[in-house]
Amino acid sequence: MEGVPHAHVAQVATAICPYVHYVHARLKQQTASTLLALIRSMEARGVPLQHIAVNDRVDVALLTQAGAVQLPAGGLPVRDVKSLLPEKIRCGVSVHSLEEARSAEQAGADYVLYGHVYETDCKPGVTPRGIAQLECICRLLNIPVVALGGIQPHHIPELYHAGASGIAVMSGIWKAESPIAAAMEYRRMADYVVHRL
Amino acid sequence: MEGVPHAHVAQVATAICPYVHYVHARLKQQTASTLLALIRSMEARGVPLQHIAVNDRVDVALLTQAGAVQLPAGGLPVRDVKSLLPEKIRCGVSVHSLEEARSAEQAGADYVLYGHVYETDCKPGVTPRGIAQLECICRLLNIPVVALGGIQPHHIPELYHAGASGIAVMSGIWKAESPIAAAMEYRRMADYVVHRL
Repeated sequence: MEGVPHAHVAQVATAICPYVHYVHARLKQQTASTLLALIRSMEARGVPLQHIAVNDRVDVALLTQAGAVQLPAGGLPVRDVKSLLPEKIRCGVSVHSLEEARSAEQAGADYVLYGHVYETDCKPGVTPRGIAQLECICRLLNIPVVALGGIQPHHIPELYHAGASGIAVMSGIWKAESPIAAAMEYRRMADYVVHRL
Repeated sequence: MEGVPHAHVAQVATAICPYVHYVHARLKQQTASTLLALIRSMEARGVPLQHIAVNDRVDVALLTQAGAVQLPAGGLPVRDVKSLLPEKIRCGVSVHSLEEARSAEQAGADYVLYGHVYETDCKPGVTPRGIAQLECICRLLNIPVVALGGIQPHHIPELYHAGASGIAVMSGIWKAESPIAAAMEYRRMADYVVHRL
């Protein structure tokens, strides 16, 4: 949601909320007070706090009692973060390799966000890691692995068959002509696949 | 300390520590884990945690139990931050006007950092706010006002007579040929003035 006007973000987040488990509040280039204001705005429009994952800022997650905090590369160590968080705030870690994923699990992460699996405009020129590597990580970890990066609805069957517990989508929703229709399509496909697994 | 190599920062901070009340750990362009690593490094070299003020990141202040957290413009609201902090971690707010200073005091700030008072390379082209405005704020606030911006040792008498409770120095120490000699000179002048007030 980095490039999307903030006034619009809360409105879209509210509309797509019924179709996703978490809205990831991520404003890397903005101040903490802007991030806090965005979350308060989403809350005011009816997005339940437990469905918001706060990027990087553990302090903002603590203040808002959001559902999760998502630690990026360069974020605080997960073990330290877990010592600050109450049980009900989950802690996810963004990882890019099996080593990082295992390390996050051992340090107490509740889940990992792994990517990028497919080619994506968000990572131009960076080779995607592919479905085989995802499967390897999913099979070797005991915590949920959420797949990220260039995911289109038609990818969902192979992602779930590879062992992903969920998917995370940025441009597929935020850059879609209709973010709501896109979120519904991802949801529909995920439900279909999960029910057949 | 933004432009100073990190390996050097902890070493200098340790050396100047006897002459200052707080070392302000401020790495605006860096990740939270880098900031945490810097503080751990200072601690390992003997800088007492209660003499470290953490910029912006309340989560890092909580983790390290540092002496203070310094909220910049765009930082989290001070009232919210105070609700997260234990009593022993002070909360300072960076302000640039009487209105901001009063607002910070009313919201529970333990002190304000006000500037910039004099011309400084850190704020090229921005008119300094001057000593008269500092005095006005010092007289109207009940919490300590720490002056910032372009301060040289010879400014200290007029700053304290204007009502400042302390001074904060960046380039005057970090860009000095000998940061330790510079810190000692600031300390000597401040002690001299305080004893004559």
